Amino acid sequence: MKVTARDLHAFCVQALTKVGVGETDARTTADVLVTTDTWGTFTHGTKALRAYVRRLRGGGLKKDGQPGVVAEGPAWALVDGDSSLGMVTSAFAMKTAITKARTAGIACVGVRNNCHYGAAGYYASLAIPENMIGVSMANDIPTVNAPGAKGPVLGSNPFAFAAPAGKARPIMLDMATSTVAGGKVFAAAQLGKTIPGNWLLDANARPTTDPTPFSHAASLTPMGGYKGTGIALMIETLSAVLTGAAMTWQVSSWTFSDPSKSTGHGAAFIAMNIEAFMPIAEFKERMDHLIQEIHASEKAEGAERIYVPGEIEFERREKAMVEGIELPDDVVSSLRSLGDELGMDVNRILN
Amino acid sequence: MKVTARDLHAFCVQALTKVGVGETDARTTADVLVTTDTWGTFTHGTKALRAYVRRLRGGGLKKDGQPGVVAEGPAWALVDGDSSLGMVTSAFAMKTAITKARTAGIACVGVRNNCHYGAAGYYASLAIPENMIGVSMANDIPTVNAPGAKGPVLGSNPFAFAAPAGKARPIMLDMATSTVAGGKVFAAAQLGKTIPGNWLLDANARPTTDPTPFSHAASLTPMGGYKGTGIALMIETLSAVLTGAAMTWQVSSWTFSDPSKSTGHGAAFIAMNIEAFMPIAEFKERMDHLIQEIHASEKAEGAERIYVPGEIEFERREKAMVEGIELPDDVVSSLRSLGDELGMDVNRILN
Repeated sequence: MKVTARDLHAFCVQALTKVGVGETDARTTADVLVTTDTWGTFTHGTKALRAYVRRLRGGGLKKDGQPGVVAEGPAWALVDGDSSLGMVTSAFAMKTAITKARTAGIACVGVRNNCHYGAAGYYASLAIPENMIGVSMANDIPTVNAPGAKGPVLGSNPFAFAAPAGKARPIMLDMATSTVAGGKVFAAAQLGKTIPGNWLLDANARPTTDPTPFSHAASLTPMGGYKGTGIALMIETLSAVLTGAAMTWQVSSWTFSDPSKSTGHGAAFIAMNIEAFMPIAEFKERMDHLIQEIHASEKAEGAERIYVPGEIEFERREKAMVEGIELPDDVVSSLRSLGDELGMDVNRILN
Repeated sequence: MKVTARDLHAFCVQALTKVGVGETDARTTADVLVTTDTWGTFTHGTKALRAYVRRLRGGGLKKDGQPGVVAEGPAWALVDGDSSLGMVTSAFAMKTAITKARTAGIACVGVRNNCHYGAAGYYASLAIPENMIGVSMANDIPTVNAPGAKGPVLGSNPFAFAAPAGKARPIMLDMATSTVAGGKVFAAAQLGKTIPGNWLLDANARPTTDPTPFSHAASLTPMGGYKGTGIALMIETLSAVLTGAAMTWQVSSWTFSDPSKSTGHGAAFIAMNIEAFMPIAEFKERMDHLIQEIHASEKAEGAERIYVPGEIEFERREKAMVEGIELPDDVVSSLRSLGDELGMDVNRILN
């Protein structure tokens, strides 16, 4: 089903305001989710809105929460999310990091009392138009195995990095620290598909191609073995140990847990002001040089292009903004259910 | 062959001072290399000293180089390494980051005119006794494939993270962004062994178990596919694009290139002052809780322990400091050749 970004955005805003979220927060949340869909990252876009709305109605997410800085210094701040929508708190925290980095050169903002924040790359990429480099990371309830473990040990703790370029598109890396994000396994289960043999381990830590035991009786494999576990632990340290957020099993599932309770997620955001180090024009020229060099590298047999991180997402977005977003069935189904629950007609925006 | 850390350290200092390096810089370099050997990370320890000495004698590494801050702000600095030993410049840069983080909360120090800096984890771990979190990264000449490429596109760009704990050992992640570091492939070739099928791609980007074509006619696989490429590109951005260091193919090989020329490597170091965010005792208690929870997770069949990053290295070090370091043959052979070249008797320290 096709939808325009504008219509989808309006639908999200309407759904959120209908359950009592203020217009500004609703727009921020819609920006994050619809942008994510334009990237083609459908596991983390408007598909999740139904679960957020469920928590808003349950009270675990506060409709009128007020994320705020509870402690700060020249190059850092600690934000309490007040159990607001993860998109609202996270955008606020990243913007706080950007403001501080403008004078300090670099700034780190940690967050507690956050919720699931969607696509990590959205917040990192807020740095791009500010001529800054952005980093974003968050913890989550354990779903990922570690070498030697029988079940999940750490969350799929996402990590994102974004940097501007000149003539070339910006760079944006957005990744789970599991081999793939759990959302892809859920999506395969919903679509009745099997999954590649290196994504998931069953209840006895043996590889499986069946997505259905996830997440109650299976764990995701860590990206690159112990390295993925190590990066996930770094993210847990910065976003939860250091911020006072819920850690590992203290985090509640944003999809499955009691919707009247806060999830307690943590997050961390870093902004670096490029102009502290180098004139921005020089940086962009150097970044263009690097990107063009990678593009021009000799291709492997059968490969037509070498992509830099974010290139596929930004190309999809350019297309989606002109031609509309082609929503997969599982997203349409989720939006339809949400529409039914709120008495909104989703067909009005679908072509 | 066995050697005590103390004897090995003295040997390194003697070798370096013999070719004109000052006592202080020689001791700093020996600290890095011998610590790395005590961790059992022999690919990045004293084995490399011979190559550094070759560059010191050739002039590409300056015996009396003076790394210094060329630009700075409250939470950042840019260091020019003056083509000094990578260990000397990198330790200086990390200490600069630690000093600035003490007041700013977080600080980032970029480096240009660096050389190969050995084990990334050494510099990150300098933050531990300061009750800070440390991050270390560096670029290198391309040896790693990217999805779609026929040959190498980016360096194996190492990344390290370290954080203190309380009763538990600190955490230290030290990883190449390739599936394995190139040094492991060289070591296999020197020892006449084959390698696992997922480490290396031949000249036609097909997997190979033969380590000998590396690095002239083979490329390392990126860790976790596009994710390793993405993290390597983040490291290239922070350590080279942003610092004015040599990028990708502009970097000269520290092992193979003309030893009279500088290699031009870049690096970046980040320190975060935990006490800005949280009382250190509370942080350490939370970190202990997290580590103990991971240790106590149910084990997979056949697994006896679940290790956190750095645990294996720190345990090896504790043992090595008591029982001596068991040096592998390729390290002994490199030290022997170095001894021959400098008229030093390495047998005197080997048992």
